[in-house]
Amino acid sequence: MSCSEASSCESSVFQFGRFSRRHLGVDRNAITEMLGTLDCTSLEQLIEETVPASLRLKHSLTLPAAASEEEALEELRELAVRNQLCPTYLGMGYHGTHLPAVIRRNILENPGWYTAYTPYQAEISQGRLEALLNFQTMIADLTGLDVANASMLDEATAAAEAMALCYDFKKIPIFFVDSHCHPQTIALLKTRSEPLGIKLIVGSISEIPSEEKSICGSLLQYPATDGTISDPTTFIERTHAAGGLSVVACDPLAMTLLKPPGECGADVAIGSTQRFGIPLGYGGPHAAFMAVKDELKRRLPGRLIGVSKDAEGNPGLRLTLQTREQHIRREKATSNICTAQVLLAVMASMYAVYHGPEGLVHIAHRIHLKALQLASSLAHAGWHVVGRPFFDTIKIQLTEEQAVLLKERAHQHKVNLRFLKSDSAVTITLDETTVSLDSLLKIFGATDAKNINHPIHWKLPEKLRRTTKFLTHSVFNRYHTETEMLRYLRRLEAKDLSLTTSMIPLGSCTMKLNATSEMLPITWEHLSNLHPFVPVDQAQGYQEIFCQLERWLAEITGFHAVSLQPNAGSQGEYAGLLVIRAYHQSRGQSHRKICLIPHSAHGTNPASAAMAGMEIVGVACDEEGNIDLIDFKAKVAAHRNHLAALMVTYPSTHGVFESSIKELCALVHQAGGQVYMDGANMNAQVGLCRPGDLGADVCHLNLHKTFCIPHGGGGPGVGPIGVAKHLAPYLPGHSIIPTGGSHATGEVSAAPWGSASICIISWMYIRMMGADGLKMATQIAILNANYIAKRLENYYPVLYRGEQRRVAHECILDVREWKQRASIEVEDIAKRLMDYGFHAPTMSWPVPGTLMVEPTESESKEELDRFCDAMISIHGELLMVEEGRLDRIDNPLKRAPHTAHAVTAATWDRGYSREQAAYPAPWLRQHKFWPSVARIDNVYGDRNLFCSCSAVEGK
Amino acid sequence: MSCSEASSCESSVFQFGRFSRRHLGVDRNAITEMLGTLDCTSLEQLIEETVPASLRLKHSLTLPAAASEEEALEELRELAVRNQLCPTYLGMGYHGTHLPAVIRRNILENPGWYTAYTPYQAEISQGRLEALLNFQTMIADLTGLDVANASMLDEATAAAEAMALCYDFKKIPIFFVDSHCHPQTIALLKTRSEPLGIKLIVGSISEIPSEEKSICGSLLQYPATDGTISDPTTFIERTHAAGGLSVVACDPLAMTLLKPPGECGADVAIGSTQRFGIPLGYGGPHAAFMAVKDELKRRLPGRLIGVSKDAEGNPGLRLTLQTREQHIRREKATSNICTAQVLLAVMASMYAVYHGPEGLVHIAHRIHLKALQLASSLAHAGWHVVGRPFFDTIKIQLTEEQAVLLKERAHQHKVNLRFLKSDSAVTITLDETTVSLDSLLKIFGATDAKNINHPIHWKLPEKLRRTTKFLTHSVFNRYHTETEMLRYLRRLEAKDLSLTTSMIPLGSCTMKLNATSEMLPITWEHLSNLHPFVPVDQAQGYQEIFCQLERWLAEITGFHAVSLQPNAGSQGEYAGLLVIRAYHQSRGQSHRKICLIPHSAHGTNPASAAMAGMEIVGVACDEEGNIDLIDFKAKVAAHRNHLAALMVTYPSTHGVFESSIKELCALVHQAGGQVYMDGANMNAQVGLCRPGDLGADVCHLNLHKTFCIPHGGGGPGVGPIGVAKHLAPYLPGHSIIPTGGSHATGEVSAAPWGSASICIISWMYIRMMGADGLKMATQIAILNANYIAKRLENYYPVLYRGEQRRVAHECILDVREWKQRASIEVEDIAKRLMDYGFHAPTMSWPVPGTLMVEPTESESKEELDRFCDAMISIHGELLMVEEGRLDRIDNPLKRAPHTAHAVTAATWDRGYSREQAAYPAPWLRQHKFWPSVARIDNVYGDRNLFCSCSAVEGK
Repeated sequence: MSCSEASSCESSVFQFGRFSRRHLGVDRNAITEMLGTLDCTSLEQLIEETVPASLRLKHSLTLPAAASEEEALEELRELAVRNQLCPTYLGMGYHGTHLPAVIRRNILENPGWYTAYTPYQAEISQGRLEALLNFQTMIADLTGLDVANASMLDEATAAAEAMALCYDFKKIPIFFVDSHCHPQTIALLKTRSEPLGIKLIVGSISEIPSEEKSICGSLLQYPATDGTISDPTTFIERTHAAGGLSVVACDPLAMTLLKPPGECGADVAIGSTQRFGIPLGYGGPHAAFMAVKDELKRRLPGRLIGVSKDAEGNPGLRLTLQTREQHIRREKATSNICTAQVLLAVMASMYAVYHGPEGLVHIAHRIHLKALQLASSLAHAGWHVVGRPFFDTIKIQLTEEQAVLLKERAHQHKVNLRFLKSDSAVTITLDETTVSLDSLLKIFGATDAKNINHPIHWKLPEKLRRTTKFLTHSVFNRYHTETEMLRYLRRLEAKDLSLTTSMIPLGSCTMKLNATSEMLPITWEHLSNLHPFVPVDQAQGYQEIFCQLERWLAEITGFHAVSLQPNAGSQGEYAGLLVIRAYHQSRGQSHRKICLIPHSAHGTNPASAAMAGMEIVGVACDEEGNIDLIDFKAKVAAHRNHLAALMVTYPSTHGVFESSIKELCALVHQAGGQVYMDGANMNAQVGLCRPGDLGADVCHLNLHKTFCIPHGGGGPGVGPIGVAKHLAPYLPGHSIIPTGGSHATGEVSAAPWGSASICIISWMYIRMMGADGLKMATQIAILNANYIAKRLENYYPVLYRGEQRRVAHECILDVREWKQRASIEVEDIAKRLMDYGFHAPTMSWPVPGTLMVEPTESESKEELDRFCDAMISIHGELLMVEEGRLDRIDNPLKRAPHTAHAVTAATWDRGYSREQAAYPAPWLRQHKFWPSVARIDNVYGDRNLFCSCSAVEGK
Repeated sequence: MSCSEASSCESSVFQFGRFSRRHLGVDRNAITEMLGTLDCTSLEQLIEETVPASLRLKHSLTLPAAASEEEALEELRELAVRNQLCPTYLGMGYHGTHLPAVIRRNILENPGWYTAYTPYQAEISQGRLEALLNFQTMIADLTGLDVANASMLDEATAAAEAMALCYDFKKIPIFFVDSHCHPQTIALLKTRSEPLGIKLIVGSISEIPSEEKSICGSLLQYPATDGTISDPTTFIERTHAAGGLSVVACDPLAMTLLKPPGECGADVAIGSTQRFGIPLGYGGPHAAFMAVKDELKRRLPGRLIGVSKDAEGNPGLRLTLQTREQHIRREKATSNICTAQVLLAVMASMYAVYHGPEGLVHIAHRIHLKALQLASSLAHAGWHVVGRPFFDTIKIQLTEEQAVLLKERAHQHKVNLRFLKSDSAVTITLDETTVSLDSLLKIFGATDAKNINHPIHWKLPEKLRRTTKFLTHSVFNRYHTETEMLRYLRRLEAKDLSLTTSMIPLGSCTMKLNATSEMLPITWEHLSNLHPFVPVDQAQGYQEIFCQLERWLAEITGFHAVSLQPNAGSQGEYAGLLVIRAYHQSRGQSHRKICLIPHSAHGTNPASAAMAGMEIVGVACDEEGNIDLIDFKAKVAAHRNHLAALMVTYPSTHGVFESSIKELCALVHQAGGQVYMDGANMNAQVGLCRPGDLGADVCHLNLHKTFCIPHGGGGPGVGPIGVAKHLAPYLPGHSIIPTGGSHATGEVSAAPWGSASICIISWMYIRMMGADGLKMATQIAILNANYIAKRLENYYPVLYRGEQRRVAHECILDVREWKQRASIEVEDIAKRLMDYGFHAPTMSWPVPGTLMVEPTESESKEELDRFCDAMISIHGELLMVEEGRLDRIDNPLKRAPHTAHAVTAATWDRGYSREQAAYPAPWLRQHKFWPSVARIDNVYGDRNLFCSCSAVEGK
């Protein structure tokens, strides 16, 4: 059967007006041509040869018929306006904010920023690395600590990571939490501490144990969740006396007026930068942060940007200390965090760059003065204002009658206030968007009182006021006009290679199209301006979107229920394992703690398992990259009575559809265990097979891979989990807004639906693709990978194939022999690809010294050919080195990438020409992407750790 | 008085939260420093020394107090939602359309595209030149003609330009118009023909005179305004028989199905590309077009892109035949058009690139089939469907009763139908956004009739069907996926230098910040999806916006009333002169036809005057660039009884505030004439003085200069006029929606409020700046210009200064001596600036061989310094050439600009180093903008005229 005669599914997918026509990189003609190269007569044949018949889905997915881009946007708009935007004063770490328009348009709405990948390839990522260095500098300055990382997922998980840091450092399994922390933070600490065996004490300062070595650390919220500010010093001193590290959760805006944690003696500060311009988005994504004293810097979880130097001696930025944590420590890791909220951190840092220190102080002051004014008016009207001094949140003690009255009035006026426990008090949090206090005053029956004098004890006490300077680096003091800001943002953007430039063929990362229609709704106000803790009846639009998306994802994965709460893939893994853990516990099988993990698994798997209190047992892989069945059976047998789970990636991280998967699952089930499937490679399954059908009990999905959420330059991500029916009762709950099953496990994210606002992107994708479009996407992803494998197999051995010699949606190119043959390492090839205008494939994972290529379905045949041509051209260069026509050290691979500066230098004494250096392929004459720095020295960077802007200026 | 003690006005302008703080490029510190350089103690002193005291405004402008960005957006949103989006089937050249999201986000919402200037400097404009070449190719293909220009302002003015072309070519002052042309086109032809003495005959085909040489041309609408399609061939043949050129106004989408005008024998085709993805925007801006037979190509008005070659022999694009028309012909020009609708033409061309020929046919077919279906249903229900065959518009003949009933029902259901003269018929026009016919069928009491057979005679007759291929060039056939399209758009963008890169210091063009908050509303659906001819009560939001904006502009200019209709500066000039003409006529002074124009005036001035039927008399200028008073008085005296108007630019095109302006105006008035002030330099007046106060009777404004509408890479523009009270009755009217004064002149634009949607940008600017902000902007624009003049005066003579040696908002740098001293011409310096990352200032205007620099208020001191440093560095290079240290031919100026290709070539045999070529200044190490082609050969391009894509591929 020729392609043109192919199934009716195929033909409708390419119809005019269908979104799939735009999303898919190839059309019918290209498919035919590529199938020819593969000696296949139809796509169906290729899939038959790739995915074992026994595993394949026999029917079409039951999803709504594909909508056009316009129809989907219209449908979504109708849902969106069902969210009600009511005046909201709930606080709790979430605030209304103004995202400066120049940042919105040039970062959040700009594919040049949002389609970039994690900056592993530093030389073509200097733009966002600089923005993240600004972020780190900003956080270090505002918190008064030495080193900050490049962001955390949310404030609550940042607190949990800090707790883990304290525990790992002090080894004392007791952590103290001030009871005035945000309730969702306390709840999440409960979730996270329990599997690790950490005892959590929630209490007030007087309850901190007084003996030495009695706690590993403590957490204080500053200002407290009810708005009250007290001097953290005593709390910190008592913590230190008890042998613990002091963690302070602080509001970065308040820190412009208040003495920062570092100056109060804290060891660690965490918090959220949401109010630095990041839309509420019904809970996320936002960039949280962690900063530490110098001596703890090598224990920072997540990403850390450092200053190093390049081959030309110029400063260059890079991800530093990447050899920490789950990358090599695996089950010994104390954190499974392997990403950051890069796009949001970039935006928050730019908010500080644009406003500058004085602008931030001005904003903080304005809010503070409004709060003072409100408090005065309320006090004047006879309300009992307690909790002073305060910054932006005032607390009013209520009688029973007052509480009833106030609730009634707030409800009637649709104003969201926070009523504290037993309604004995209410808090009101103001923010930079607060314009008029009229509606508030009305509810309280008070009148405006601009001229009322504020009681003196409400003002910030002298000793708590910030006296030290911050954000003194020039970057925070020179881009305060829109023109300068615009050009700064564009200069940084121009240094980064994103999907707007060329394909980013990263294996396991699925860098597919992030279509504009999917992205447009993100900045609709009905979706972006909603506080996560508003009553659910004000968020009916979101609720319906979640409901539909969960149903669709359940159908796609073959599961019973889905939770959207986990806000990263790693969080999904963790949540999934918690669900398995709760299931075993519910059956009186708490002793089941063994987690089998193949050696080929993502490093986050063992880290997540460890965090879930499991013990990891590795399983070997055979030469084909498949799980070694003999070893597997032996391990199952050995741990039969304690087996909790198998964690397995499918198709395997080696890019193969193992035909034994059903058998593996059955064996685990027979032994009383559960199967956790890692969804990293879901892009090879959608519409062809389903984790639930294969035998998995849980699976996480990376919506930022398979379902089109852009990588944002290294975050955000969304990692929902799907579970089988028997596990549905244990899906994660939430302490403020109930979610999850009937026996919900504790929350894993600060917000009930995690990074709610970007789930919309995946909703749009599925809504526009339809079942036939999604299936075709998978087929073409597989076609594209096989096409690349075919075109390159005569140049580079392709590792691991399925039984019929097909790869799945990615392929591993083996370049290890060239170390011997030409002294060229995989990194040299990766850097050389930059000269050809490409981002390197995944390097040295899962097999050291190899390149894993995942083209996705969105790339065109022309682009695939261009990439193959580059790889073939590099092969020619390798041969030249081997044959001695190029020197073994002084050659364009070893000295790649080449900057414009280098190739235009007056002197050129290299063993190859300038043109060979910069223009090794014809298309570069049309469009050349110039790396902004030469090869960056990793060793130097790790040895000389500089993580703030001043390090750059010093050089 | 030091700057910090300056007026209260100044201090509030720089307050936190004020938009002016973001718009203005300098802050208090920079102002102080720059004033120091100028030996001034305060901004006030500088202004006193620059603007003659007798002319200065004594009070503050009465404008609403400045709103913050958020407040202004909120206020505008409240206005916007007062526009009602009702189902609209009015047609008449305006259609609902889907702008593909990838084009919206990456062009319309992307400052990299919208902040670019007109592509005079071709080497740094290849991106939009390519997009415009695509546009020309698309139009030529769709119309079946040989050459198309790079767009026209709107369909009606395109028709008028075509009429002028016919007249100029044939010299017969009679033009025939088919009565089935769009009514606004006929009305505008009336406006334009009358002053030129062209007799307009409006009639049906049988009324075309049958004698030879009886008409210069004719206009036919195809399909006709009522939707009917008839074979144009007969009409064209009769036109030719009568000695005229045949102009056909056609719908480009219909041309994918119908035999195009060129194939029917037409000489000229015009029309609008609005339905190619351009939002309705309540009338504009849209890109209209004109295409002609080969023999007429050198008569094409407006912009024409041509293919030439660069110094390295590679193809390069440029504006071709720029020596035509108003540039040198001045009063002999037949057109005053000096711009195009570049941004819109780019978008329309990309719509075709993205859909491809098959996609366009699909869209056209779908609409056509829907129209057939509707017609069948209505016929089935007993309505009398006439006017067939049709494409997208069906016509139904009505009885009197039916008309009454239908009007009632349409009104009741808020559906906009077009009732033809005397309500004897109604038309319904469908478009690509038409989803359901239900509401229409309901109004007509018909039911859906998918299965009713269409009468055979409704189908497009065989002989009128298009049989020829179109859009066969590869560019229209390779970017059909979103990923490929995105990268194509980004590749083109990267070739162009825009305000996102560096300052564009173009004298007389005011390339100031186009703030994001000003731009955001453009794509709000309540502003973008409104048809210009909906009943005014459905456009209350727009009406209020216009009303406010007119009031504000009247206050700023000191006039009584304002018309927003002119959609370009040149149209404003023309409209203003028509008003003056009407005024004289009303007083029985029709003989007043003399228009005095100083030699220093913009070339559009005499062209506009000629079009308005005036006779131009030139006035000499003195050595200081001021109007020569003696000559002026002599001319006034000589033409006393026939003086119609003086056209004067203020401050002068030489950048000087002439103190004699009031005297000049008084003299004109004494002689019975009127004063027309050209508002090109309004950025030097706002808040400091007002045209109305100076004695002008009319003034046009360029909202795309002074009032922040971006230049869009060469359009759109808006050129409203303000007039004194006695002229207000004559402001332009409109044939469909009444506008203007009690004795309104005919319309000058197709839409009643011209480019309505972008007037919002200026509304936002004024609303956010407030009176104090606007005044400060003017002061800083003057400060910046004087600062540059000061820093460069020791290197380049500064031509023309005011009485106290100050320049206004721009300054002219004289580089003429270097031709003698070093064989370097002004163009060499302009091209060399590209190597430094700058766009050249205005070149050779108003004084040949000089550079006119206008920095605007939005540029920072750092940027001004960087520009000055570049000019000083170039001065050093000039000296080196003079002194023989660089060769007179082989030097970095003569050989500028330098491409990356050139400086990385294997061989380098130039008399200067590669680094000197590409990195002559330190900041280039941080951010280098590479010209994508070397110096383009202008002479070759003009001699070898290629104006479509195939010319590139052929090379």
